[in-house]
Amino acid sequence: METVDACRGWASRNSSGVLSPFNFSRRFVGGDDVSLQITHCGVCYADVLWSRNGHGDSMYPLVPGHEIVGIVKEVGSNVENFKIGDHVGVGTYVDSCRDCDLCNQYIESHCSKAVLTFNGVGMDGTVTQGGYSSHIVVHNRYCFQIPDGYPLAKAGPLLCAGITVYTPMMRHNMNQPGKYLGVIGLGGLGHMAVKFGKAFGLNVTVISTSISKKDEALNLLGADKFVISSDKQQMEESSNSLDFLIDTASGDHPFDPYMSLLKVGGICTLVGFPSEIKLSPASLNLGAKTIAGSLTGGTQRIKEMLDFCSAKKVYPEIELIKMEQVNEAHDRLVKSDIKFRFVIDIANSLG
Amino acid sequence: METVDACRGWASRNSSGVLSPFNFSRRFVGGDDVSLQITHCGVCYADVLWSRNGHGDSMYPLVPGHEIVGIVKEVGSNVENFKIGDHVGVGTYVDSCRDCDLCNQYIESHCSKAVLTFNGVGMDGTVTQGGYSSHIVVHNRYCFQIPDGYPLAKAGPLLCAGITVYTPMMRHNMNQPGKYLGVIGLGGLGHMAVKFGKAFGLNVTVISTSISKKDEALNLLGADKFVISSDKQQMEESSNSLDFLIDTASGDHPFDPYMSLLKVGGICTLVGFPSEIKLSPASLNLGAKTIAGSLTGGTQRIKEMLDFCSAKKVYPEIELIKMEQVNEAHDRLVKSDIKFRFVIDIANSLG
Repeated sequence: METVDACRGWASRNSSGVLSPFNFSRRFVGGDDVSLQITHCGVCYADVLWSRNGHGDSMYPLVPGHEIVGIVKEVGSNVENFKIGDHVGVGTYVDSCRDCDLCNQYIESHCSKAVLTFNGVGMDGTVTQGGYSSHIVVHNRYCFQIPDGYPLAKAGPLLCAGITVYTPMMRHNMNQPGKYLGVIGLGGLGHMAVKFGKAFGLNVTVISTSISKKDEALNLLGADKFVISSDKQQMEESSNSLDFLIDTASGDHPFDPYMSLLKVGGICTLVGFPSEIKLSPASLNLGAKTIAGSLTGGTQRIKEMLDFCSAKKVYPEIELIKMEQVNEAHDRLVKSDIKFRFVIDIANSLG
Repeated sequence: METVDACRGWASRNSSGVLSPFNFSRRFVGGDDVSLQITHCGVCYADVLWSRNGHGDSMYPLVPGHEIVGIVKEVGSNVENFKIGDHVGVGTYVDSCRDCDLCNQYIESHCSKAVLTFNGVGMDGTVTQGGYSSHIVVHNRYCFQIPDGYPLAKAGPLLCAGITVYTPMMRHNMNQPGKYLGVIGLGGLGHMAVKFGKAFGLNVTVISTSISKKDEALNLLGADKFVISSDKQQMEESSNSLDFLIDTASGDHPFDPYMSLLKVGGICTLVGFPSEIKLSPASLNLGAKTIAGSLTGGTQRIKEMLDFCSAKKVYPEIELIKMEQVNEAHDRLVKSDIKFRFVIDIANSLG
């Protein structure tokens, strides 16, 4: 039976980040587990960072990938909410203590014992390996039904990029129709923030460093307005106009000019990781404004988002690639040469 | 009748900030106005800053003071909510447009036409003069009843120090009994935050740079815990322990160590004006934490606070001084040599 858990994947072996085929084993399916045959996996910037030891903590060989979608192939004896053949997904974490206040509030991603989907250390002490692979075994709590009819290829990016922007938008009431939302940065996260914004009935302004994004922002994604952040006149004309901002930029950028776009009482949620946040207290105090951080989302929120995306036909914009193209894709991601999310067609690459 | 509006006050004449007697005139009482004989005026750090041209925009002669308490001596013909003899107060602003969304929501302090109580420019184009003076005339909307029995000498500091901390505490739900509040800095604002915290039924930790504040924090103000911010071990022992923080420190200080004291989802409200806010995005994102600015409070909130303070017997700690001592008081305020708020006994100085 040893071959049952054999898993084929692609791994980075060192800080070069170059990915190549790697065979390894997954645990057998436990009583509470679900095993899924992976069909697709989105490519997140975190995949590149950890492949290249960007945080200095990479454990090699490292199989990245935490926007995982597939088909259930086996369920444990205690599992009642999944059956073989179900379309399911797995996001950025695969375990947590399920016993603390945070887990009990379904904020599992902030549980101090949460286990990342790859480059994490599981409860059994083994290093977790991600979705650039043929199958994965997870506790059923961290596995999500993809609603009927939702295209599998497009579901993956919801599980990191999507939930990362959906969670703070819901927490901070950015779903009030008619309100004005600004989205800073138009990558994988930003384009989902625009799509959610429009689905919530908001007036959406995209604020970008690059004029090249204007056509896509307005015509592909349906944003109402496009502002170049380096254009002082445009920025001034938009001052005091937004109820909410969602800042998806991970590059260093000033905060004061963006905060000036908010109305009194406005809220900026931060989902990127620039090297630092630096701003004047006046940018917060004078208009009673708020900056709030966020990090992915809990399991209930993920289910809610998947249902919302299905009902409202919110689909990420993806570029489907084969596994053989993943190294090139990582390079292009670093150069922001991507519209808007790569998804690896695992089924037709490793299948 | 010209002598009717003659007003005696103390003004700063230049950036030395030295205050000396100054006679000037106030407007006559209009139909919507209230005129009050000032009995007391709190001394706020803003008084020192503007007296000394700290913002570079001081208009001399400048009569400071925006924690004003007194007795109604005249009311306009349209005024129904005040009568001669009423105990009343005036805070940090004396006018606003009364027509915009913010005014309509009683957030007048953020109205773009709000007029500061001193060193502001009134709707008639004249420069406003503050409460270090014998009387003041204001539109009745910016005048507040001091509840029966509330000591007049202690009411003044509520109108700036008090409302400045009460407003964000209410806005961000820091009034939930049993929750854990941290108060950074123990000056005029901080000591009121501790008092409100205890009145709300919170467990209050004072975080200070100075061990000299410990006894007062615990024994005079009733805080539950005292932490020296420079003591790494104490700070680490308190990490992840607080639901809320209120940061009253105006001196420059690091933010990351304070943010680490918050639990997941914790909120830090900022009311001070350090030269900048600088922190790691991880301090916000990893725990889904928030920093929110605030600036004084609206008229409804002020009324609510005054009633709360009366009902719960929340009284600022004051040091009553004569007007002749005000220059010395300003110097002592700069050196933080004060427990916790100077109040000028105007009635017995100018009366």
